[in-house]
Amino acid sequence: MTTKLFRNARINTPVSNSSRTAEKKGSYSISFWECGAVLVKNGLIERIGDETEVLKGLSHKQVDQEITCEGRCLVPGFVDPHTHMCFSSPREAEFSKRLAGTPYLEMLKAGGGILSSVRSVRESTDEVLLGATRKNVMTALLHGTTTVEIKSGYGLDTKSEIRMLKVIEQIGRETPLDIVSTFMGAHAVPMEYKGDSDGYVDLIVNEMIPAVSRECGSAFCDVFCEEGVFSVPQSRRILLAAKEHGMASKIHADEVNDTGGAALAAEIGAVSAEHLLATNDTNLAAMAKAGVIAVLLPATAYSLRKPPANARRMMELGLTVALSTDCNPGSSFTQSMPFVFSLAVMNMMMTVNEALAACTLNAARAIRMDSIVGSLEKRKYADFLILDGETPAILAYQTGVPPIYSIFKRGECMADCFQERRTVR
Amino acid sequence: MTTKLFRNARINTPVSNSSRTAEKKGSYSISFWECGAVLVKNGLIERIGDETEVLKGLSHKQVDQEITCEGRCLVPGFVDPHTHMCFSSPREAEFSKRLAGTPYLEMLKAGGGILSSVRSVRESTDEVLLGATRKNVMTALLHGTTTVEIKSGYGLDTKSEIRMLKVIEQIGRETPLDIVSTFMGAHAVPMEYKGDSDGYVDLIVNEMIPAVSRECGSAFCDVFCEEGVFSVPQSRRILLAAKEHGMASKIHADEVNDTGGAALAAEIGAVSAEHLLATNDTNLAAMAKAGVIAVLLPATAYSLRKPPANARRMMELGLTVALSTDCNPGSSFTQSMPFVFSLAVMNMMMTVNEALAACTLNAARAIRMDSIVGSLEKRKYADFLILDGETPAILAYQTGVPPIYSIFKRGECMADCFQERRTVR
Repeated sequence: MTTKLFRNARINTPVSNSSRTAEKKGSYSISFWECGAVLVKNGLIERIGDETEVLKGLSHKQVDQEITCEGRCLVPGFVDPHTHMCFSSPREAEFSKRLAGTPYLEMLKAGGGILSSVRSVRESTDEVLLGATRKNVMTALLHGTTTVEIKSGYGLDTKSEIRMLKVIEQIGRETPLDIVSTFMGAHAVPMEYKGDSDGYVDLIVNEMIPAVSRECGSAFCDVFCEEGVFSVPQSRRILLAAKEHGMASKIHADEVNDTGGAALAAEIGAVSAEHLLATNDTNLAAMAKAGVIAVLLPATAYSLRKPPANARRMMELGLTVALSTDCNPGSSFTQSMPFVFSLAVMNMMMTVNEALAACTLNAARAIRMDSIVGSLEKRKYADFLILDGETPAILAYQTGVPPIYSIFKRGECMADCFQERRTVR
Repeated sequence: MTTKLFRNARINTPVSNSSRTAEKKGSYSISFWECGAVLVKNGLIERIGDETEVLKGLSHKQVDQEITCEGRCLVPGFVDPHTHMCFSSPREAEFSKRLAGTPYLEMLKAGGGILSSVRSVRESTDEVLLGATRKNVMTALLHGTTTVEIKSGYGLDTKSEIRMLKVIEQIGRETPLDIVSTFMGAHAVPMEYKGDSDGYVDLIVNEMIPAVSRECGSAFCDVFCEEGVFSVPQSRRILLAAKEHGMASKIHADEVNDTGGAALAAEIGAVSAEHLLATNDTNLAAMAKAGVIAVLLPATAYSLRKPPANARRMMELGLTVALSTDCNPGSSFTQSMPFVFSLAVMNMMMTVNEALAACTLNAARAIRMDSIVGSLEKRKYADFLILDGETPAILAYQTGVPPIYSIFKRGECMADCFQERRTVR
């Protein structure tokens, strides 16, 4: 039993609105306290609000540690709801080729892209895979991410997919972060099924999904629905089979072409659809009506030199927007949610409050973790960041330098970045 | 006398070409060694090249410390040739206003922008000014910057300008970085000269420049040549007066409007002209002919939501291009050269080698420090970065996360970032 009191913080946090209709379930408001305090008991938020309110009836004996935030801004820890952080090595050489002009789908066809990560995951030892995943996850933590979703999808056979999911689960036990795993056998068609994607879908449906359901704790199944990858009917078949085994749906939809992935997400009641660079308004509206969350990945657009998704239009259409790094070795090798926050504000014209909600509460909703993380509310985890500024705008103002003063996960200090920055040898 | 041997490094460094004509003085080639080594003696590079060559005739007794880079990429430390890192506080609230749509020149007219930093510099104690400057400089160092230029220009009276330059010089003595100071009394017209910019130019020419020349070690004088700030004739007058007192010229040219600042730079033989967002081809060609270096500031364009300068066109016209953060509390509050590198590659279509030269050797040329820093060559300072990747492309590939494994200034380890990232409490 430890009790910590954080004082003199400018607290900014989204708070869920209580409406329960599908269209409104993504709504929120921003709570702000100019001189706020948080009382943390055993890693959970016990009290939060104006300092004078929090202190009422509280005796010194009840508090083990008192921390002053010295007027700095305090926000929820970032939730990164869409990553591929489990891989065995980056693909730096391929990135350089892409800079020289080779299109991504062309590299994929030639056995590069995702398939080269598949080869290296299959060939690497557990130690290598664990090490590389741990490094990604710890880099994310030290940039303020306290909860992260990680997908499989570089195994593409039953054994390797399960191995990936077990590695993800082990990293979840080893590191302080909360980690949610997603089964994504349908990330690409593996070489051994080249020209027979239906045969591979059979394998996913008949063998992988039952095995994953039996052996792993994945809450979600995700599909890369795109021309040349998985069609809408194939994606539907996979996601419905996974649903029967208790896995909720996610879809990589309309990243390159408007193939109807967003419409499918609405049809089957997916939790989220991701990317959405090419989606038409009709399908976006259908998503909004069905309560499907739009997970936008501006660092991917940046890295692919594409315009980002039209977040403003999506919000106009009533969609709940979340943001994510999409951290992966191909199209977005960044673990930094502060960078994503900055891109959202500077390139996507989201307001600071919209970006804050999209990186925290809405991101938690996109991985169904919003009952315990994503906002600073009583009985939720004490996952928060003390920023090196007065408002969350500092995250866009000081781009490229994570302006994070310190990071708390379940009330424990994970890193005092500014302290570290001063540790010059 | 300490001798250190760095082995198994993928060394990438620009190297000056020896041509001495003005048009060609910015040329370089990139040297690359797949398995390279650097022998460092007393902070200077004694030998560099292929490992087998460097090791020839070298006995163990001659080496005090051996460091393996384990195949990582080794590049020169960044030189940041254009910053305003000496200020007393950020302007976060103004940034939020700007996001809400207030144009910069309008804020400047209303006493905001630069003028609010002037007020706070004049009002703050030496301790505050030193502390804020030190924090900027150390953040830059921990993002790989080993040499930095810092301008005055938030004092705008003789006493305050000299005070700023002395603070900059003190930070240069206190911190491990090499710091070059630039006198920029002509950063804005102070409130007390509102409507009488010629009167303020008189003050600069008759009082400030002689005093700075007497009391400070500034090698450069810079002017903000822009509509509503200083005209071309005023800028010419200031820069020629400074030249007589031994200060070489720099010009903030054509950032908002094409006012002829670039042409002036060519006319008076300035060392560099900066920003260049609105410059026409004729004036760019004149700059190239006169050997004026183009210092481009993509983080400023990013923060102002503007398209970046046309670096490709400038290089076609024969200009030497350098890159810089422009770190300042108004239009670009970032200390990160890795972020600038990434913007250059992803948004300005510069190649990785062009960006590398622009952030190191060409940046050193822009502040006349290229005889000792900016490239890894015999007898230069052993200022270099071991990157957490195989090529300099990692700096664009992993945006938002400085992918720097460790930082050496004059052969001394300044920070082992990756080590720090693992220090989770």
